Parts: sequence; C-alpha cells; structure tokens
Amino acid sequence: MANIRKPIRVIQYGMGPIGCAAVRAMLTRKQLELVAAVDIDPQKIGRDVAEVAAAQRRLGIAVLPTLADALKQTSADVVLHTTGSFLDSVTPQLTEILGMGLDVVSSTEELSYPWADHAQYADAIQRAALQAGKTALGTGVNPGFLMDTLPLALTALCLEVERISVARVIDAARRRLPFQAKIGVGMTREQFEAEVSSGRMGHVGLRESTAMLCESFGHSVDSVRESIEPVLAEADMQSGGTTVSRGRVIGVHQTLAAVCAGTEFVSCTFHAALEAVDEADHIEIAGQPPLRIDLHGTNGDIATVAILVNAIERVVAAAPGLKTMRDLPPVFRW
Amino acid sequence: MANIRKPIRVIQYGMGPIGCAAVRAMLTRKQLELVAAVDIDPQKIGRDVAEVAAAQRRLGIAVLPTLADALKQTSADVVLHTTGSFLDSVTPQLTEILGMGLDVVSSTEELSYPWADHAQYADAIQRAALQAGKTALGTGVNPGFLMDTLPLALTALCLEVERISVARVIDAARRRLPFQAKIGVGMTREQFEAEVSSGRMGHVGLRESTAMLCESFGHSVDSVRESIEPVLAEADMQSGGTTVSRGRVIGVHQTLAAVCAGTEFVSCTFHAALEAVDEADHIEIAGQPPLRIDLHGTNGDIATVAILVNAIERVVAAAPGLKTMRDLPPVFRW
Repeated sequence: MANIRKPIRVIQYGMGPIGCAAVRAMLTRKQLELVAAVDIDPQKIGRDVAEVAAAQRRLGIAVLPTLADALKQTSADVVLHTTGSFLDSVTPQLTEILGMGLDVVSSTEELSYPWADHAQYADAIQRAALQAGKTALGTGVNPGFLMDTLPLALTALCLEVERISVARVIDAARRRLPFQAKIGVGMTREQFEAEVSSGRMGHVGLRESTAMLCESFGHSVDSVRESIEPVLAEADMQSGGTTVSRGRVIGVHQTLAAVCAGTEFVSCTFHAALEAVDEADHIEIAGQPPLRIDLHGTNGDIATVAILVNAIERVVAAAPGLKTMRDLPPVFRW
Repeated sequence: MANIRKPIRVIQYGMGPIGCAAVRAMLTRKQLELVAAVDIDPQKIGRDVAEVAAAQRRLGIAVLPTLADALKQTSADVVLHTTGSFLDSVTPQLTEILGMGLDVVSSTEELSYPWADHAQYADAIQRAALQAGKTALGTGVNPGFLMDTLPLALTALCLEVERISVARVIDAARRRLPFQAKIGVGMTREQFEAEVSSGRMGHVGLRESTAMLCESFGHSVDSVRESIEPVLAEADMQSGGTTVSRGRVIGVHQTLAAVCAGTEFVSCTFHAALEAVDEADHIEIAGQPPLRIDLHGTNGDIATVAILVNAIERVVAAAPGLKTMRDLPPVFRW
C-alpha cells in the first residue's frame, strides 16, 4: 500500500503548440492526472481538451477560459504554464496560480533565472510563492538546461573554472513553421533589423543563462555584449513549401558575452537557420581540467515538452519559493 | 554582514593520493577551512598535514591517527572521507563520523548507490545519519557522475527512455602508476585472470551506476551480465620507465549490462589501457528524442578531487540521511 502514490493532479494553462504537446505527453504518464486546461482563445474554449491537443482519446474535459473556472470544477496540485516568454505579461498569471494554492512549472524563458534583469517580478513571484507555501519554476531546454544547468553541473568535475562557452546550432528546416517565423525566415535584411530594433527578434534566455552561470561562481556581471545578426540565403532556397530568395533571411545568429572583473567569463552563441550544418550543442569549459562536451539530438519541441513535464514531480516535492533548476535535484524522465 | 559566511570546517580522513590532492584543493578555497587530518599510516602520523600533502605552506596541524583524536583538538562540520572503495571495510568509519555529529562526503565507490547490492550497510549508515541529524554522500567521477548522475540528468530532455549506454575510455599512460597497477598493467594474462577470479580486479562502481539508472526509471534489475577482460600488448611497450612485453596486460576492458523486464536497459563499458585511442566518455540514450553526448577531459585524479571538494557545500546544506547525487541539487564548482 505504501508504494501506491496518488497521481499528481495537473492543470494545463495555455493550449498553444507546446501546451498541446504537453497534454499529449501527460496523458501517457500514470503519475500525472490531467484534470483541467485553460486558454483564452475563443476557438478553443468549450472544446474537449484532448481534441484541441490532437490526442488519441476524448477526456470529457472542456477547455475553460480561466483558472478560477477550472478550480470551480476540480481540485489540483500543480499548473503547467505555457503562455509566454516575458515576465511583464505572465507575472499576474503566475501570482494568480500560486495564490490559488498551486505549484507551477512554467515555460516562461525570463523565469528561468529572473533576478538579474527582472528582480521586481522575481520578488513578486517569490512573495506569492512563500505566502502560499507553494513552488514556482521556470524551465525548458534553453534557457533551463543547455546553456545554464548543464554547464553548471559539468563544473562539478573542475577544480577551477576560468571561462565557459556554449554554442547551440539548430537546423531550422527541421523545426515547425512558427519557429521559422520567429527567427525571421523569409524577411528582408531591413525587416529583420527593424524587428531587432524593436526588441521583437532574437532568442529569449541568453541573458538568464549567462546570469545564472556568472552569479553561481560569485562573479557579478560588469557588462554584457550582445549581437543579433541575420543569416542570409546565398541562393534561392525551399522551405515549408515556399521559396526564400537569395539575400533574404534564413535565420538568426545571436551571441551574448558576459564580462566579469574585466574578462569575458561566459559566452553563448545561438545559431538557428535553415539547413544549418552540424546541428548540435557545444560546451567548453576552460579550467582545471578543461572540458569539452558535444550533444546531439536536443533540438525540437519534444525536448522542451519533456523537461517541462519531467520537472513536475520535482516541483511538487520542493520547498516553497521561486526556484531555478540550480536549486532542485536533477530533473529526469520519471 | 549577512553576506559574510563562516567557512565550513573540514576534517580530511585518509591521506592517500586523493586525500592529499583534496587537501591541496581545499587550501585554495575561502569557503572551506581544513581543521584536521586523519590517517592510520605511522609514516604520516605527527607530520604537518601540508607537508604530507605536498602543499606549498605549513599549516601547523599534525596528521592524527583517529577521528576521536582530531575532535579532542578542534570542532568541525564535515569530513572528506577517502579511505577505500568497499562498504564492508568503511561502514564503521562512516557510522563513527556521523555518530560524532559530522556530515560526510566519501569517495567510497560502493556508497554512490548502495541499496542494490549493499542494503545492510546502507541501512546502518542511513540509521546513523538520521539519528545524528547529519548527511552522508558517496560521490566521484565514476561512479557518482559520468555513468549515473549525468545520463540521468540528460533524460530530462526525453519524453521516453528505451535504453542507456555509457562508454568510458581512459588512456592509462596518462594516469599515475597506482592506477596502472590497479588495471593490471604488466601482468600476465594468467595473473590478471587470477585477480579477476579473486574479485580484486575490475573497476568498482558499474553495479552502482547501473542500479541507480534502472531504479530511477522504476525498473527492477532482473539480471546483470558482467565481463572483465584483459587488454594485451600487441608489441613491446614503454610505460613509466619500464617495458611491458608483447602479450602482457596493458589494461582492462569491462562491461556490465543490466537486464530489466527481459531487455537490456543499461549497458556500461569501462576501458582503461595504455595508449587507448579516443580517450573520452560517450553517452547514448535511445528514446524520444534520441540523444548522444561525447565528453572530453574528464579523466585523471583532478576531476575526482574536484567533485569531492565541490560536493561539500551541498552536503552540509542537505537534509539528514544517506543521500546520492540523484537527491541533491547539482554539485558545481562553488
């Protein structure tokens, strides 16, 4: 009897592509019970959650417009939150979730290590979590793992760490169209640069990952050097049924370096483009001993959905507060 | 003022090569204060700890024969324990340490995940830890990280895990002579096989690593297939100033596969030989998505010493009990 644990009761908050994939994944896990789903899209409200998520079976649960509506119908332990990247828009959702007495695992990139650039939101979420006695975690593949948690964990093997470099190369041709749109595929250089200027172009998370690494080693970040450049087609290319003309954008090349005490301590490169060669992640730690790590297979939405769903049990078991992946025992496929 | 933490007071227990290297490492860390060292070797007792460890400066602390002697002279928080690989001989030391009110980080390979093969020792250590309100951890590069914690942490990115394979290749020519002796360098095939038969040959830890992986995924291990084979010199070879003749042993090739529910779920290969090519660690996870990871630079005693010293602060902060690396937040270079 002692071995029979009740499943963890989960509410899915956000029924976009990642939320729907998370629903499909959770339906295969005995330890998790999906009890409700929330989305503001009128096209989804009222429809069966499994149908919206394109899952195999009907659940008999309709997508509801608010968390309060969901909690009128069911009790729950934790929310899997996948509605946006930025804390200015999602903080009210996160504090609402915590205030209703639920733990939360969120895909919000800025939540992965929010203190460096978003201390006021971090404080608000921390307060709400402690007041409710609940836990909040922001995680994902990147930020959340490849450029922060994993390099940090590898330094367990180092007596000294002088510099950390991480490079992520993604072949965008193998990713879904919204991802391609996000990295500017098909734009002119001018359109791309206008997006960069308005802050709407570029991968979200490099700031958070580098801040976690620097601060973990006791280094304060003096300055940050960031660049976001378009990758341009050298010849006409096919993508998703349409042609990208020579000279148009096929992706983004983004770098961020954090300077601590006068030297570049962390540098991250994010390169995502159609037909990028050598799709892989590379981590180099200059130190004693020097380490080099190459990973293959981490790309795509599968890994993002996996780490969100896999984190649920660690978050439910964690002490109250706003946590990062650095604070929790290793998340793994339960 | 709130930021000024007192250093953690550490006793080094065991002044062999790893213990001495740990002493040198700890002397460079502001967060750690080495307050005593213990060893049973009459050649070391009474001598200055720093001199025995070949550290640059004198400490004014003599090596003492017992932990009780050390605690008559000083208070401490934690013991770094590096006296042996096997729980049958070190369990009394570990329960003594815990009974004296100290946390302990140990290099004992069998402690890294002791429940599968050594439940009675694990229970005794767990009881002693809980009774004292203190924490015990067994860690190291392997076991402790490369074949257990790291593959487990990588499965965070997986929706499904079908099989895990880890291979570690070490060029023994770059390791110290005691390591070469341990893997049989210079022996005849017959001598090597006699050592295998008597249980004195082979890397300790594959059982522990595979057990941690299998049990983390809820799989019980039906059976284990293990082989320990000599690697033989194809021609006369130079090593450490002496010649190894053609046909003599230059290293070990060891494999262990754990079968769960009729299929091989985990397989580990440990290959350590003079002039082994492609020194590296390889992790393959068959699953959704499939992952492949190659690491370079993890070999040598530096990494072993690093993970032991780096683990100290996590262990001091941990809840009481016998813990494994799976239970603690990621160890990193503090």
